[in-house]
Amino acid sequence: MPTLHDRESILGIDPGSLVTGWGLVQVDGNHLTHIAHGTIATSSAYTQGARLRRIHQGIQEVLRKFRPSGVSLERVFFARNPASTLKLGQARGVALLAAAEHETAVFEYSAAEIKVAVTGFGQATKQQVQKMVTVLLCLRGEVAVDAADALAAAICHIHRRDFSAQARRAAGTRGKVLRWRDYLEIAGKK
Amino acid sequence: MPTLHDRESILGIDPGSLVTGWGLVQVDGNHLTHIAHGTIATSSAYTQGARLRRIHQGIQEVLRKFRPSGVSLERVFFARNPASTLKLGQARGVALLAAAEHETAVFEYSAAEIKVAVTGFGQATKQQVQKMVTVLLCLRGEVAVDAADALAAAICHIHRRDFSAQARRAAGTRGKVLRWRDYLEIAGKK
Repeated sequence: MPTLHDRESILGIDPGSLVTGWGLVQVDGNHLTHIAHGTIATSSAYTQGARLRRIHQGIQEVLRKFRPSGVSLERVFFARNPASTLKLGQARGVALLAAAEHETAVFEYSAAEIKVAVTGFGQATKQQVQKMVTVLLCLRGEVAVDAADALAAAICHIHRRDFSAQARRAAGTRGKVLRWRDYLEIAGKK
Repeated sequence: MPTLHDRESILGIDPGSLVTGWGLVQVDGNHLTHIAHGTIATSSAYTQGARLRRIHQGIQEVLRKFRPSGVSLERVFFARNPASTLKLGQARGVALLAAAEHETAVFEYSAAEIKVAVTGFGQATKQQVQKMVTVLLCLRGEVAVDAADALAAAICHIHRRDFSAQARRAAGTRGKVLRWRDYLEIAGKK
C-alpha cells in the first residue's frame, strides 16, 4: 500500500451527538481509493462533556494517523428540531476544532451537493447513498450509514475539486477556486 | 488575597460564536467574592474552526489558571433562528469539551432560573442582570453584558447549591441534591 504522504487524501466527517461517522478517500488522478472508515459511538448515559470529549479524541486520532490534506463535511443549517440542532452543533463544534488544531482545511457542501456527487440525484435516500459509496469505492460488505455519509462527503469534495480545476483550465483562470455553478456556466459557453 | 484552592469557586460561562463571556465567583459561607471576569472575542473574518479554537483555548486558560470546582452555564434549547442555534451549539460544544478535559463538573440552569437568582425576577432584561451582578459582587464600573451573564450563571449555581444544602438539612435527607421545587415544597410544609 502506498504511503498516504505520497497521494492526497480527504477525510469526510458526519458529526452526530450519538454517532459520528468518518471515512478516508485517497485520490490519484481519476482514481478513488478507499483507505479506511469508521464510527465514533457515544452513549446518552454519559454527560454531554464526556461524549464531546470522545468525539474530539476520536477525530484527533484519525487526523493524527492518516494526516489527510482536507476535511469535508455536510453544510448544515438545522436538524429535526431546535434541541437536535443544538446537539448537532456541539458535535460539529468539536469536530471543526479538531480539524483546526491539526491545521487541516475544512470544506463544506450541502446535503444535495453530496447526494448528486455520489448518486447523480439530489433527493437520494440514505440507503441509495450507502449503496453508491460501496460501489464507487469497490467495498465488500455493508458500510454503516454514518460512515457512508462521511465517505460520500469526501467523494463530493474530490469531485468538486476536480471540476474546479477543469473549470479553471477551461476559463484560463488561475488560483481562483470555482464553484459548480461557475463550472456549468463555463461549460455552457463552450 | 486567599488562594483559590482554600475556597470553592465557580466559573460561569456564556458561550457565543462571536463573544464568549466568563466570570469567576468564590463562595465562602454566605459571602460571594468576585475573582475575575472577561470575554473571549472572535471575528467573523476567521474560519469557524479558528474561532472555535480561540474559544476553546480561552476557556482552557481560565480553567488552568483558576481551577474552579464547577462550571455553570445557561441551559439553552434554541437561539434566535436555526443558523444561530447551530453556531451557538458549536461554541457550547468546545466550552463543554474544555470543562470535560479539566474534569470539572458542569451545571446548567434555565435563563429564568439565572435571572431569578440575581434579580428575583425571571423576566429581567440583560441590563437589569448586568446591574444586579455589579451590585451583588460590589464591582466598580460596568461589566460587559456577556461577562455579566457568565457571572450571573456562577451566582445562580452558588445560590441553588446553598438552597439544596438548606433543603437537605430541613428535610433531614442526606446526599441527595434537591431542586428549587423540592426546597419550596419543604419550606411550605414548615
